[in-house]
Amino acid sequence: MTQQQAMTPDELEQALRRIGEECYHHRHPFQLRLQNGELNKAQVQAWALNRYYYQAMIPIKDASFMARCFDPAIRREWRQRIIDHDGDSPENGGIRRWLALTDGLGLDREMVESTRKLLPQTRHAVDAYVHYVAERSLLEAVASSLTELFSPIVIPIRMQGMLAHYDFISRDTLAYFEPRLTQAPRDADFALRYVKQHAVTREQQQQVLDALRFKCGVLWSLLDALDYAYVVPGNLPPGAFDPKRDV
Amino acid sequence: MTQQQAMTPDELEQALRRIGEECYHHRHPFQLRLQNGELNKAQVQAWALNRYYYQAMIPIKDASFMARCFDPAIRREWRQRIIDHDGDSPENGGIRRWLALTDGLGLDREMVESTRKLLPQTRHAVDAYVHYVAERSLLEAVASSLTELFSPIVIPIRMQGMLAHYDFISRDTLAYFEPRLTQAPRDADFALRYVKQHAVTREQQQQVLDALRFKCGVLWSLLDALDYAYVVPGNLPPGAFDPKRDV
Repeated sequence: MTQQQAMTPDELEQALRRIGEECYHHRHPFQLRLQNGELNKAQVQAWALNRYYYQAMIPIKDASFMARCFDPAIRREWRQRIIDHDGDSPENGGIRRWLALTDGLGLDREMVESTRKLLPQTRHAVDAYVHYVAERSLLEAVASSLTELFSPIVIPIRMQGMLAHYDFISRDTLAYFEPRLTQAPRDADFALRYVKQHAVTREQQQQVLDALRFKCGVLWSLLDALDYAYVVPGNLPPGAFDPKRDV
Repeated sequence: MTQQQAMTPDELEQALRRIGEECYHHRHPFQLRLQNGELNKAQVQAWALNRYYYQAMIPIKDASFMARCFDPAIRREWRQRIIDHDGDSPENGGIRRWLALTDGLGLDREMVESTRKLLPQTRHAVDAYVHYVAERSLLEAVASSLTELFSPIVIPIRMQGMLAHYDFISRDTLAYFEPRLTQAPRDADFALRYVKQHAVTREQQQQVLDALRFKCGVLWSLLDALDYAYVVPGNLPPGAFDPKRDV
């Protein structure tokens, strides 16, 4: 395939799915440890506390996308993502359901919401995603959400694994994930249709592929940071959540 | 010390130096391995290739600071940082001297400059620093440069250690570091005077301390990523520099 020759929409989809197979975090060592029951409670706490920041920044990311999108039809579609995460009241929505997990793990709510105990890399990676969506083309911003194509691979395995292996995890504490099983495919279908329709030139298609690679790198590096700091001994960065002192 | 009570300028300096002692990367495991001769050539290559991105983005960071700074006196001081890194010609300057290191290590120049083989975390952490300087107050931007206060701790130890332990390292390949021994203290003195003069309220002083903590986190997490990907076995992220294939 030369620089100039564009792919068909279906070839583009196949190329995206190959990137997911190679780069999505379903094969990350920390992900495997989590779903195989090989982590202790402190390590699961660290995962939940750090991943909270990702959840909390998703509506910021989606709002900054909408702030640059002049097509009401796309905004109408996209706003559902914000509604899903922020909910209708303080008692529901994805962020609130994530706090059910951190609560259930015995983490102090104020500590979690303050985000002051994050690993530095968690903040860098999530902020990199937020900036990417705020600064790149709308096409690249939409394409960077395409990791949702692959979350149905991970969510059921993770839920079943965590329920089976950890006595400190219940179906209630995993309330975040169940709605995602319908929300994520709906969002991914829209984003996939969008990029197949709008990425026409080879250059645009390359941007779409690069955007998905970038986003896979964000999710991958979140787990790198957790694995390094909380699984490999002796690597806790200064100021980060310390299960011995912060619970 | 209450929220309201401001520190004296010298107390602020002491508080900054305590943060350096705790959070600067002079005690990071990868830093110790590097200077103690415990890394192999491939691991030193990975360090040099990833750290290149930090060097390359420094003038971008400094230009975005100057773009928001309305005081010619400060801009005159600050522009020296850009001159130091970009040089007077393609043959000199800090970025060029860093390429002497990657060249000396046998890395392909085009691969290094393209930055396409970076660890995702390297990009996230460096970009976090660039965004921080572009988006925060000038006071916080200046304060985030204060890690230079501590680089004289690290540079001579690293230079001597690398020269002593690695036969693939020569004084020529370490040309980057020698000028930094005078440039860094000059820059740090200016920045320290600036924050001691301008951080007057307790809130401003807290911003200054937080900015230094943030920046220490950037440098720390660059080494976290290297240690995880290139020292702990089996953790190379998809698409990153692979010494077995990319040299």
